[in-house]
Amino acid sequence: MNSNNENSLYSLRGVSATKNEVHNAIKNLDKGLFPNAFCKIVPDFFTNDPNFALAIHADGAGTKSLLAYLYFLETNDISVWKGIAQDAIVMNTDDLLCIGAVNNFLISTTICRNKYRISGEILKTLIEGVEEFLDSLRKNGINIHSGGGETADMGDVVRTLTVDSNAVCRIKRNEIVSNHKIQADDVIVGLSSTGKAIYENVENSGVASNGLTSIRHDLLSKYYPEHFTDIFDNFHLETQNAYTGKFRLTDFLQEANSTVGQLILSPTRTYLPVFNEIFQQLRNDIHGIVHCTGGGQTKVLNFVENLHIIKNNLFDIPYLFRLIQSESNTSWQEMYQVYNLGHRMEIYVSHSAAQKIIKISQDFGIEAKMIGFCEKSDKKRLTIISEKGEFHY
Amino acid sequence: MNSNNENSLYSLRGVSATKNEVHNAIKNLDKGLFPNAFCKIVPDFFTNDPNFALAIHADGAGTKSLLAYLYFLETNDISVWKGIAQDAIVMNTDDLLCIGAVNNFLISTTICRNKYRISGEILKTLIEGVEEFLDSLRKNGINIHSGGGETADMGDVVRTLTVDSNAVCRIKRNEIVSNHKIQADDVIVGLSSTGKAIYENVENSGVASNGLTSIRHDLLSKYYPEHFTDIFDNFHLETQNAYTGKFRLTDFLQEANSTVGQLILSPTRTYLPVFNEIFQQLRNDIHGIVHCTGGGQTKVLNFVENLHIIKNNLFDIPYLFRLIQSESNTSWQEMYQVYNLGHRMEIYVSHSAAQKIIKISQDFGIEAKMIGFCEKSDKKRLTIISEKGEFHY
Repeated sequence: MNSNNENSLYSLRGVSATKNEVHNAIKNLDKGLFPNAFCKIVPDFFTNDPNFALAIHADGAGTKSLLAYLYFLETNDISVWKGIAQDAIVMNTDDLLCIGAVNNFLISTTICRNKYRISGEILKTLIEGVEEFLDSLRKNGINIHSGGGETADMGDVVRTLTVDSNAVCRIKRNEIVSNHKIQADDVIVGLSSTGKAIYENVENSGVASNGLTSIRHDLLSKYYPEHFTDIFDNFHLETQNAYTGKFRLTDFLQEANSTVGQLILSPTRTYLPVFNEIFQQLRNDIHGIVHCTGGGQTKVLNFVENLHIIKNNLFDIPYLFRLIQSESNTSWQEMYQVYNLGHRMEIYVSHSAAQKIIKISQDFGIEAKMIGFCEKSDKKRLTIISEKGEFHY
Repeated sequence: MNSNNENSLYSLRGVSATKNEVHNAIKNLDKGLFPNAFCKIVPDFFTNDPNFALAIHADGAGTKSLLAYLYFLETNDISVWKGIAQDAIVMNTDDLLCIGAVNNFLISTTICRNKYRISGEILKTLIEGVEEFLDSLRKNGINIHSGGGETADMGDVVRTLTVDSNAVCRIKRNEIVSNHKIQADDVIVGLSSTGKAIYENVENSGVASNGLTSIRHDLLSKYYPEHFTDIFDNFHLETQNAYTGKFRLTDFLQEANSTVGQLILSPTRTYLPVFNEIFQQLRNDIHGIVHCTGGGQTKVLNFVENLHIIKNNLFDIPYLFRLIQSESNTSWQEMYQVYNLGHRMEIYVSHSAAQKIIKISQDFGIEAKMIGFCEKSDKKRLTIISEKGEFHY
């Protein structure tokens, strides 16, 4: 099966999981000092010290902000915006974690809003949410600071709001995880995307800030476009693919002990405290780290050559993802390309280091295990062998 | 007259020039090391060197991106997107210039698009536009680099696209312009927003990336909402205030020797090369710098206390701004609050330094002159005395 299928359901909904157009647009750009690293890394122009490098990263809450808006309209629960602030930040910090950076972050957040829908109170809660989340990270040993942000009134462009952050860090070059050491015989340690770490207050559903467009259409019913007209863009959207689910955000799901809204708005977990400890003990043993965001379990293919990645011992698929699949009948082949389906962080290491990493993660209350391994290959490829079948990418 | 008039025409169009809601949302936040500085400045967490500081800044092209989209639809001129890339960057660098930073910038750009309207070709042109503009700055002696960016498909949130950049810099603390030295007897040097600097290829209309929502509605005709339905949000927008102008973007204006589209999409000028030279010669003489963006000629009021700012020798009002006023009948009181009306950069210095700054600016081909001065006062206030009358803020 073609892993770059631009005719997938996800693509018909206006989102490209494989980002072919974006990759084409940036293919001629400078890739930085370490072309296989998870984030672009550039020389330290600030000090010109050849032993250091800089990285600036941009990412955001994506269309999770729209779900938060609907949830807020229905529940009047203002705290949902704190989760969106966390989403926008973690989507940056946990990408930078993959290059080995877990400290000394400088953050900025940009909110573009339709001021007729997004009130000053929502703005205030988002901005306070940024500060509170950074404060909680500092209490967990992470040196991270806000340098400010921007709020723009863009009602003719933005129907509700976008929340995007930037994170910048400076890192010692000899501490960088550049993924070029990922090799045959490496094992892959996965860190669960669900459960509750010792530094968290609530259970994670496993969702981060990717795939939310599909989740929205797969789970939510036509009640939303019918009752909240003018909020959505149905331009070119195949009607039969829009809001095909049966749920409202306030529906309670017995099996999850949670409402649909709480489940899909579960704030993006950060793995920073865990990796802070992993790097202190094992930095030189780590060959590669992949954050399974857009691209899901296939994301690693962006960072290796001539390797066959075999994932044959994945986590049980969390409830939310099983629900999405059963409601949408999306193929499991595509599910693995859009969602993390159980672990959001994967580390490529030797067998002996793997055991230590698993122990550290478990000490933080996050399940971890060897989910696969790497083999020599004449081209890069990925095989997923799971309860749902065997899939090739 | 009340300078915080939230019932102004601009406000009715969904944009707050005075940003009261935003200021309220951030009033409890840490203001950084230099509370009166134009941008938030924080300690250098990267090196912990007490002689240095960091600043990260976020801003973007605002609704100029929507105008670019309309212009592109009508003219098929893809190059308009290069101007938008420049807009998003300069709105950051030239804010940071006000704290004394003209070098060692790291940039990131985030594009949120509706992929059914914003093609891969447009993305590619925007991303190339970033690189080309940074390259042109480097050729003019400015050390500036791209650290990458993000493109998100957000069709249900974003009707067309948003283009936002972040810029980060590290600066010596003793080189920071913190505005706290602005004092009675300072003169104000204004640097023209129009003309063509020796490092530019085209004439500037004077517009930057502020006030574009008003410009769009004041100058463009109902042809746009009628022919491009579904692109705009008219939610809560008073119909009589929307697209009240008489123009199409392709209309040629004899007096400007330019089309309406070219005039209002004129890319935001950067003053970096000029200030690079000004700082080399006169850094210690500068008491304050204000970038007349949102807030226009009244922006300085955010950065002073107990001073009366008198602007009594302003530049002739550029053609574009005269056109906006005559077409919209906006009061001049409000015009000065929304647009720069002639100079976009103002420097607060002693009389002797002023002469040298004017000379440097003129050497770069940018008109400059003393546009006003400061007096002692029991509270902060601003008086504008111009060809259009006397205005108090």
